[in-house]
Amino acid sequence: MVELMDITSLQLKELIELRQVRNLRYIFDEYNLIDLAEIVEQLELKEILFLFKTLKKDITAQIFTYLTYEKKQEIIQSFSSVEITSMLDNLYTDDIVDFLEEMPANIVKQILSSVSSEQRADINLLLSYPEDSAGSIMSTDFVELEASDTVARAIRKIKQQGKSAETISVSYVISQQRELVGTVRLRDILLAETDDTVEDLMDVDVISVKTHDDQESVAHVIKRYDITVVPVVNDENRLIGIITVDDIIDILEEEVTEDIQKMAAIIPIEGSYLKTSVAEMTKSRITWLLVLMVSATFTGSIISGYEDALLLIPALAASIPLIMSTAGNAGSQASAMVIRGIAVGELSMSDYWKVIWKEVQVALLSGFVLFVINWLRLMIFTPESSWTVDLVISLTLMLTVVISKLVGGVLPLLAMFFKQDPAAMAAPLITTLVDAVALMIYFNLAVSMLGL
Amino acid sequence: MVELMDITSLQLKELIELRQVRNLRYIFDEYNLIDLAEIVEQLELKEILFLFKTLKKDITAQIFTYLTYEKKQEIIQSFSSVEITSMLDNLYTDDIVDFLEEMPANIVKQILSSVSSEQRADINLLLSYPEDSAGSIMSTDFVELEASDTVARAIRKIKQQGKSAETISVSYVISQQRELVGTVRLRDILLAETDDTVEDLMDVDVISVKTHDDQESVAHVIKRYDITVVPVVNDENRLIGIITVDDIIDILEEEVTEDIQKMAAIIPIEGSYLKTSVAEMTKSRITWLLVLMVSATFTGSIISGYEDALLLIPALAASIPLIMSTAGNAGSQASAMVIRGIAVGELSMSDYWKVIWKEVQVALLSGFVLFVINWLRLMIFTPESSWTVDLVISLTLMLTVVISKLVGGVLPLLAMFFKQDPAAMAAPLITTLVDAVALMIYFNLAVSMLGL
Repeated sequence: MVELMDITSLQLKELIELRQVRNLRYIFDEYNLIDLAEIVEQLELKEILFLFKTLKKDITAQIFTYLTYEKKQEIIQSFSSVEITSMLDNLYTDDIVDFLEEMPANIVKQILSSVSSEQRADINLLLSYPEDSAGSIMSTDFVELEASDTVARAIRKIKQQGKSAETISVSYVISQQRELVGTVRLRDILLAETDDTVEDLMDVDVISVKTHDDQESVAHVIKRYDITVVPVVNDENRLIGIITVDDIIDILEEEVTEDIQKMAAIIPIEGSYLKTSVAEMTKSRITWLLVLMVSATFTGSIISGYEDALLLIPALAASIPLIMSTAGNAGSQASAMVIRGIAVGELSMSDYWKVIWKEVQVALLSGFVLFVINWLRLMIFTPESSWTVDLVISLTLMLTVVISKLVGGVLPLLAMFFKQDPAAMAAPLITTLVDAVALMIYFNLAVSMLGL
Repeated sequence: MVELMDITSLQLKELIELRQVRNLRYIFDEYNLIDLAEIVEQLELKEILFLFKTLKKDITAQIFTYLTYEKKQEIIQSFSSVEITSMLDNLYTDDIVDFLEEMPANIVKQILSSVSSEQRADINLLLSYPEDSAGSIMSTDFVELEASDTVARAIRKIKQQGKSAETISVSYVISQQRELVGTVRLRDILLAETDDTVEDLMDVDVISVKTHDDQESVAHVIKRYDITVVPVVNDENRLIGIITVDDIIDILEEEVTEDIQKMAAIIPIEGSYLKTSVAEMTKSRITWLLVLMVSATFTGSIISGYEDALLLIPALAASIPLIMSTAGNAGSQASAMVIRGIAVGELSMSDYWKVIWKEVQVALLSGFVLFVINWLRLMIFTPESSWTVDLVISLTLMLTVVISKLVGGVLPLLAMFFKQDPAAMAAPLITTLVDAVALMIYFNLAVSMLGL
């Protein structure tokens, strides 16, 4: 037998070449399939086909779900309809649906004709839900019990239905009308007296989601209630499916990626960095660059408006970058904190005044520090400049920080008020806005204090 | 009996006032405890104390874990040592530790003297692990079996140990030396023949983490392998504890918050927005503002260096904001994409060339679009400016986008190469860097093309 050490694709290729069926089966029984799938991904199609014929059907099915979209398509196209059927029998319905959603129409048709009519009904149901809804990500493989079941009968049912269920930790109790009336944990069934019924053990305060709920709100329910699986019901409270926590982790991750993209002034793209085409990537970024170009033109026109002041005191121009970047950074710091606070559910509209008050205090304190340090810097390193110019620059910095932090803190809350995504109050948007304000403060102070 | 509808704190106060013990017990049996804890949080101390005396001990313990730090401290201080002991008996070890970590030293001492010596050993063990290590977040409440156990014996053990275990979905198989030799799912035990042994059913390819592993790497293991619980072993592979997926979701969330703060040039703070003091909040933001102030000074000195050019063609100054903000935005778009790609494990050092190539293509394409649109804009809206000045501005924009996207894409990878956090390549840092480069390109082009 081969040793339980790190397996490489070369070793796997060799075992396949030598038709070492026993060793191959041993490896796929003992090693983690997610790690092995990464190696299988690198094999050639004919090697994979040999491997799939050699291994147990349930292992083949699992490996298959972990492969990339391209590999899956290649494999399916060289499979006979019997082979497809046998593999699909070993997949959970939600995995089949995930896979079908990526495949071209002709392959979907071929696959749907290979499954049993019952499975086809389940798959079509899941495919019919809108993208990103609870219905579209749920699984229809769960254990259902009745309230009147005895513990012994419940255990028999769990053993029977459990073979194909996604989880058996929780079973769902349904009424004659298939309404969800309770949940019961396997743990409570096992620890119960044999003459107890499911009704005695079940929890009737069921946390559930609706088929048309957005997947993000499903993620928040699972997070809030620290549960590993949530039932999905339709508008008549009939049990339709379940969603498990592992699917939720991926959704939370996608959601964060989307937020980060929005915050960086990118129109969210779904695919991964490496797989997104250059055209799509450009499209997702150019829109905001153009919008911000136009707004920067307005900022520029503020400078043009004070051309005379700049001609009289050219030193004023040298501080433009300092003032613009301090404004931008102070603003995006505040907006990042507030946007994240909203995303994790800590801040809501009602915290309006608390946010303003906190930002004002933080801004006054940091503004004062910047004022002092900047003035010292100017006095030490540019002794030739007049102290009034130094004062104008330092004062502008302080006022700028206060206004930028206020704008950065309030805009995301305002977006929420207007039912917009707070993350869309991107740092670049806030930067452009506060840039303009900062320059106006700067030149107004300069004109009035320096008597230009 | 009260109806199963939304309960308010006023209703709860009334039931407590009227000493409606039966109704109170009914409510806490039927309603979700996480929702109820939010209401309890708003009650007065003497109301909470009455409630805690009235309810079952396991319910009290759960409610307690969901309360805020301040409320917990208040309650503990008015508890007798007997009451503390009885509540701690109903808490999981990791929840006790979480709670102790927040409490002041005198309360910790009081609590440690209230628990059994066995529990004290467990707690001290967990408290001894470094913050954010697997050891510090694990629970010591799990089910352990031996390989030679029969299915019947295993079920007996699970029933026995399961009462206090965090999960019974998975049991851990340990050797005589307490080494972790395998895991076995409750599901497989239930579906097995009665004469099978645990050895026949267990999975020997165990995915585990070490006590001193960082909690983030634990989160990544759980995510990668789609598991709901992971065992924690020491350097001798002895089983010490388990970590469940619900704790991991919180860790993943904290990690993202930290990344977003770093990307917005904030030194990460642990507490929530509303609870962090103004001083701490200012400290977390001022450092970067000062650093960026200094670097903006260098950018400013570039402008000073070209004072003569600005005096000859004052129109050049008006485009400074446009060029600086386009550079900054293009750079932070690229860095946000690459930082996120690294965080979700899609990009690694070896993708260096792929990232450069993609950014160059995206940059050339978006740069060209900006070039054309900006030239058109200048020709239409500022017909008075010479076409050569327009060309200088548009050309600068294009070159700036290319360089900014390259810098933004490469810096996070470079940070990873030097074992630094890619997220520390904050947008503001990249903005300042590319601002300077953009202005240099601008004035150099202006001087050479306009013959200044």
